[in-house]
Amino acid sequence: MISCRKYPSPLPTVANLAALLVVSPVPHSFIRPGRDSARLSSLPISVSSFLSGSLGRKLREGRVVGVPAMAAAAILPELATQVFIPVAAAVGIAFAVLQWVLVSKVRLSPERRADGGAAKSGPSDYLIEEEEGLNDHNVVVKCAEIQSAISEGATSFLFTEYKYVGLFMGIFAILIFLFLGSVEGFSTKSQPCHYSKGKTCKPALANAIFSTVAFVLGAVTSLVSGFLGMKIATYANARTTLEARKGVGKAFIIAFRSGAVMGFLLAASGLLVLYIAINLFGIYYGDDWEGLFEAITGYGLGGSSMALFGRVGGGIYTKAADVGADLVGKVERNIPEDDPRNPAVIADNVGDNVGDIAGMGSDLFGSYAESSCAALVVASISSFGINQEFTPMMYPLLVSSVGIIGCLITTLFATDFFEIKTVNEIEPALKKQLIISTAVMTVGIALVSWLGLPYTFTIFNFGVQKSVQSWQLFLCVAVGLWAGLIIGFVTEYYTSNAYSPVQDVADSCRTGAATNVIFGLALGYKSVIIPIFAIAFSIFLSFSLAAMYGVAVAALGMLSTIATGLAIDAYGPISDNAGGIAEMAGMSHRIRERTDALDAAGNTTAAIGKGFAIGSAALVSLALFGAFVSRAAISTVDVLTPKVFIGLIVGAMLPYWFSAMTMKSVGSAALKMVEEVRRQFNTIPGLMEGTTKPDYATCVKISTDASIKEMIPPGALVMLTPLIVGILFGVETLSGVLAGALVSGVQIAISASNTGGAWDNAKKYIEAGASEHARTLGPKGSDCHKAAVIGDTIGDPLKDTSGPSLNILIKLMAVESLVFAPFFATHGGILFKWF
Amino acid sequence: MISCRKYPSPLPTVANLAALLVVSPVPHSFIRPGRDSARLSSLPISVSSFLSGSLGRKLREGRVVGVPAMAAAAILPELATQVFIPVAAAVGIAFAVLQWVLVSKVRLSPERRADGGAAKSGPSDYLIEEEEGLNDHNVVVKCAEIQSAISEGATSFLFTEYKYVGLFMGIFAILIFLFLGSVEGFSTKSQPCHYSKGKTCKPALANAIFSTVAFVLGAVTSLVSGFLGMKIATYANARTTLEARKGVGKAFIIAFRSGAVMGFLLAASGLLVLYIAINLFGIYYGDDWEGLFEAITGYGLGGSSMALFGRVGGGIYTKAADVGADLVGKVERNIPEDDPRNPAVIADNVGDNVGDIAGMGSDLFGSYAESSCAALVVASISSFGINQEFTPMMYPLLVSSVGIIGCLITTLFATDFFEIKTVNEIEPALKKQLIISTAVMTVGIALVSWLGLPYTFTIFNFGVQKSVQSWQLFLCVAVGLWAGLIIGFVTEYYTSNAYSPVQDVADSCRTGAATNVIFGLALGYKSVIIPIFAIAFSIFLSFSLAAMYGVAVAALGMLSTIATGLAIDAYGPISDNAGGIAEMAGMSHRIRERTDALDAAGNTTAAIGKGFAIGSAALVSLALFGAFVSRAAISTVDVLTPKVFIGLIVGAMLPYWFSAMTMKSVGSAALKMVEEVRRQFNTIPGLMEGTTKPDYATCVKISTDASIKEMIPPGALVMLTPLIVGILFGVETLSGVLAGALVSGVQIAISASNTGGAWDNAKKYIEAGASEHARTLGPKGSDCHKAAVIGDTIGDPLKDTSGPSLNILIKLMAVESLVFAPFFATHGGILFKWF
Repeated sequence: MISCRKYPSPLPTVANLAALLVVSPVPHSFIRPGRDSARLSSLPISVSSFLSGSLGRKLREGRVVGVPAMAAAAILPELATQVFIPVAAAVGIAFAVLQWVLVSKVRLSPERRADGGAAKSGPSDYLIEEEEGLNDHNVVVKCAEIQSAISEGATSFLFTEYKYVGLFMGIFAILIFLFLGSVEGFSTKSQPCHYSKGKTCKPALANAIFSTVAFVLGAVTSLVSGFLGMKIATYANARTTLEARKGVGKAFIIAFRSGAVMGFLLAASGLLVLYIAINLFGIYYGDDWEGLFEAITGYGLGGSSMALFGRVGGGIYTKAADVGADLVGKVERNIPEDDPRNPAVIADNVGDNVGDIAGMGSDLFGSYAESSCAALVVASISSFGINQEFTPMMYPLLVSSVGIIGCLITTLFATDFFEIKTVNEIEPALKKQLIISTAVMTVGIALVSWLGLPYTFTIFNFGVQKSVQSWQLFLCVAVGLWAGLIIGFVTEYYTSNAYSPVQDVADSCRTGAATNVIFGLALGYKSVIIPIFAIAFSIFLSFSLAAMYGVAVAALGMLSTIATGLAIDAYGPISDNAGGIAEMAGMSHRIRERTDALDAAGNTTAAIGKGFAIGSAALVSLALFGAFVSRAAISTVDVLTPKVFIGLIVGAMLPYWFSAMTMKSVGSAALKMVEEVRRQFNTIPGLMEGTTKPDYATCVKISTDASIKEMIPPGALVMLTPLIVGILFGVETLSGVLAGALVSGVQIAISASNTGGAWDNAKKYIEAGASEHARTLGPKGSDCHKAAVIGDTIGDPLKDTSGPSLNILIKLMAVESLVFAPFFATHGGILFKWF
Repeated sequence: MISCRKYPSPLPTVANLAALLVVSPVPHSFIRPGRDSARLSSLPISVSSFLSGSLGRKLREGRVVGVPAMAAAAILPELATQVFIPVAAAVGIAFAVLQWVLVSKVRLSPERRADGGAAKSGPSDYLIEEEEGLNDHNVVVKCAEIQSAISEGATSFLFTEYKYVGLFMGIFAILIFLFLGSVEGFSTKSQPCHYSKGKTCKPALANAIFSTVAFVLGAVTSLVSGFLGMKIATYANARTTLEARKGVGKAFIIAFRSGAVMGFLLAASGLLVLYIAINLFGIYYGDDWEGLFEAITGYGLGGSSMALFGRVGGGIYTKAADVGADLVGKVERNIPEDDPRNPAVIADNVGDNVGDIAGMGSDLFGSYAESSCAALVVASISSFGINQEFTPMMYPLLVSSVGIIGCLITTLFATDFFEIKTVNEIEPALKKQLIISTAVMTVGIALVSWLGLPYTFTIFNFGVQKSVQSWQLFLCVAVGLWAGLIIGFVTEYYTSNAYSPVQDVADSCRTGAATNVIFGLALGYKSVIIPIFAIAFSIFLSFSLAAMYGVAVAALGMLSTIATGLAIDAYGPISDNAGGIAEMAGMSHRIRERTDALDAAGNTTAAIGKGFAIGSAALVSLALFGAFVSRAAISTVDVLTPKVFIGLIVGAMLPYWFSAMTMKSVGSAALKMVEEVRRQFNTIPGLMEGTTKPDYATCVKISTDASIKEMIPPGALVMLTPLIVGILFGVETLSGVLAGALVSGVQIAISASNTGGAWDNAKKYIEAGASEHARTLGPKGSDCHKAAVIGDTIGDPLKDTSGPSLNILIKLMAVESLVFAPFFATHGGILFKWF
């Protein structure tokens, strides 16, 4: 009965264990006897000699009242931690720049070729055009033109989006300041701390100011991450097309390197900004870590709010264009995908960049920021924070730092250690990336857990301090990491056309679109089973071992390979765009075949990426939920109280409401797009013959306007629900809402993503006709294929708009509740207070 | 903090309040001053003078230790209650028989017509055939033939189904006996009661035996209910067709009366069997009401288990036949629905009877039985049970008894007080039934609450006794009743083509099947919002006022109009069948138009019926869940414990798993059906020309085999999950599973039903072409119409198989957990005990 015990003092036990640790020659499994025990016994001296940072000073001075100052220390000294984190971030950024330089070596201007063929990098390189006698100069110029059109469209959309979102975020920042400031009536007086008994903490007003600053910082970092990702992708797409002339391996490396630029830039900058923010805020907060890390949670909220609009806006943009282009182009006019005669083709390619690249980037950055914040806020009221132990306090950042190094090594396997020669090697190469990064990171996490944590420490667990050992925390991170891999593989099984589930869906097209849809929906529902068991197992293990801190670090474990994950993710849309550019530039069909092969592998990896995003979102939001409950000073969330239960059932409804909005938005926007594309085909003479250019700009405008207009209601639903529920019904009902939205949203998100992915690949399976079975269903244009195209079109909003946005719904509501928790706890629940 | 308080004694307060009640001249709002106060003060005398039943004797003898024997008494004496309940049930059965007699007056044998036109019942009756010069004799013979084919098919399917299900139920009955018997090691010794301190209760072995008996009783009653419903429906369908020759009003009355036969028979027999079982079990149990009503919960489990197989098996049967018939007949061969040339046409019509009639009947009977059991088991450990007050103890049965009388009055409005003259009056007439029954029942409930309850009493609320007043309990029942009406109207708004949501879906068919599906799914998701708020509000109110007992009686309130609800529900498939028979018998298209109008109204009311079923299922399963938690002796279900949280997330996944199974089953069975129908069209010469008869029997066999085979895995999933979770993970995790399945399942069930209903009616909207807008989309066979047919086909398994089965999933898992609670509490959770 957790609820009946409050704040006992398990710390003597910790001290005893620590004493035992120093005495025992084989203290625990992480320490190899002989070599390590000597090192360990000399530890206190080396630690004290290295302690020098401003935050660490408080630790040496033993200012904390009521707990032993040095219960147990980490092996890694504070200075080393202070150096290692920014260095790892810098290495990540440097690696990203290096990759960019390598990508930029592919020239997008035809001059060099004109003055002597300098673009040839070796004797083995030859261009398909040379074989086929095409004019290289024209092709390169055309690619450059198309690329700049896509880049301009994407930039202009993002700027418009940022303008509106900026306004919203500004208002929200003011709300944060007002709500949090009003907790103690904007008093500037210091107050007694909640958890460090006897200490004095900074005033609530400071929390309001710094939370607001952190919120803005998170939003700006997210915005920059998304924007840079888009820029890199639009920089790389035409270069991938041009490299595809030399061979599939060359094209793969360019696309993958560009993905890596985005992955490393995002992971490293997210880490660096967070690290700097902690240190800068620390100057003011001093030894009030409780307040410091409370304020830091604003960073997660900012990142996630931005991500919400990025995902929803980008998702509506890309799918309105895609569905609109397909419905008229492919279905009515029977012209191929990405045909330059289709007026919506530029909008479609822009959409890939603003939706899948910028949106996904913001989303995963948000998850990363939130899981770090959740872990930090719990740690700050655990022994790390109370004893002011800097290195273990920074454990979440250390895990991410090691993650950057681990992913760097992993990337070399794809770009330098091996070379892709045939089309069949692409998918295994990408899958190997996941396996290698997971294996490397398991070692990395073990190291960090050994060096960065004291052997025994306590973790705050809803009112009591729970004793945890470092190997247990290692298990928490590792279970998250490996659960991510399992989710990835299950997703692959259900969405790749190499396996029976997608083949069954393709087969059901024999009896038409209706059975295709029934089978596809059933597949999506079924694909939920194993991921949920994996998530449940990770939660159970990490929760049992280290309470909410364990869940938060499990999420971090899943996200520790974020750089690799993002590289693989971004690779997909880049290849997709590359194919589009090849088609539009009128290049040889053999180039299109190569980019299609890259793209097909990218489809599956995109589904895997979404699986990761959802899995980590589930863990993150549970951790945030736990932190919220701690901060709101509720000790139990009992389903069997009316306040909580109505929250639970209404919360479980929210993902449906949200999906209804986003799907309808895509539908309506697509209808408008269809009408415009039809209008152009009907009214512009010579369009079908290819003698006149379509009016691309109007289609871009339709997508832009629709997505800006339509992203507001779902965005408002997510952002306002915690505020309304918290203010009117109070923290208990809000707890119910968070739990309900979490457990219901995860299911819809997974099933929507996988259903969409399966329909897409079922269509590709029929189109490719690679097996005897596939050929009986095809070819393109057969009744089966038409049924498959209908499924694919339905899947578009499911897998690229409503599904992935749900991750953000569950995370954002949780982090927002956490930030506003002090306000809700003091002023919330007015409806129940009145009646 | 519920968890920290245990068994205080609020009863002195009750006694004080009761004293106050007798003293005060205007004790509470139910009592009109003057007229009632005199009656009230003479109450104790009249009560004691009427007390005479075997159960009431204990009350007079004041055997119960520790509580005042007569804290407060109900106005209605025990004898009156003992008489009223069976009389109400008998009246219901008599009314059903009367309706049957009226229906049977329509002759299905042509002799009478041949010997002088005696079938004409009045001068205003004339038959369309007489106008059109068709041979009446042949038509009647053909109708009779078709009817008997449908009836035989349905009977044969149900017998096959019952054979397999009987085996399963037999095994399950043995499990119940073994598991419950083993709680105290099959000891025959009496044991101290859990809740009535100091008393001795019957041994656990008795509980095992009587629970098993109650289980079998519930299963048999459910089976008989479903079977009789099917028999009535197949008896009435051809009669409705024949009456349609006289006019739409005549046909309406026949169809509605037949529905009423089923509704009243079911409601009355469910009540009667339960009443008899309580009295018979009471002979053994004596004053051990705790044990008595624990054993009675088996009745709910039996009813629901049967319903599960009925819904799933019937659902797969009907949709395999329907989808299969449509895909080849309507889409490929372009022949109308119910064309006798279609080999699957008989299977399709049989399906309506075994799925929508027998399945729905069993389902609602299950809900009724479970909500009664949930209320009774909570009441037995509240003051009613502890003080052995018979009349208030029987309050749930009194509500149902009054419900039968109220619905009887309501039915007269449809059959006798008003007459339908035109097609437009049908839907309003059915809607009026809902409104009238709700209004009548509000008065009825007020009466029962006034007469059947003491003014103040206590209700068991997870370890504490909560004081409740009779008007509060009236509010609980009323909020359930009215929430049902709101859910009904919202469902109508989202599924009737008279309103914009369905018209929007129809409009989206302009751009093809894909947008139709996207809009339809979005509509279903959106339609969840208001019903969830209505359910949440009812739960909040009833939960706050009277804990889990309040929730249980709220469910009973929603179900108190079950007789009318079932009448309306059954009316739909009967009209559908009537249309099919008209088509197959080659009758005039004007008859088909009339039955189509009846059927269209039936579609919307079927959706409303499903809304009721889902809403009541949500309330029922929460009440059962609460009863389970009480019986398993858990005091809180804290989401923030790992054991509960993993249960919650896995529970929320179960409806997806279940839906995946059922949808895939329909898909596979439909594929087989399509192949068979295609084979017959291709190989039987003269089939398309109508010169040869198709082989109906093979199609019936395919549907039968598929549904029998495919109903086992989803059935096993639902039946075994509570057992596995309870045994391996224990009661906390099982609580999480129940809560998760409940909050997630309700959403999918509502959205699936409404999406399917909307697609069906969007198609009908285009077909009917009643408005300018509709005509721009039509006519039949246009591209828009084809897109709408695809949506309709996808909706079939959603609205008739997986959606409605989910009600049973959430109810059944809860009631099963309740029945097995003593076993899980003593022997469960072995996994956690081992590790």
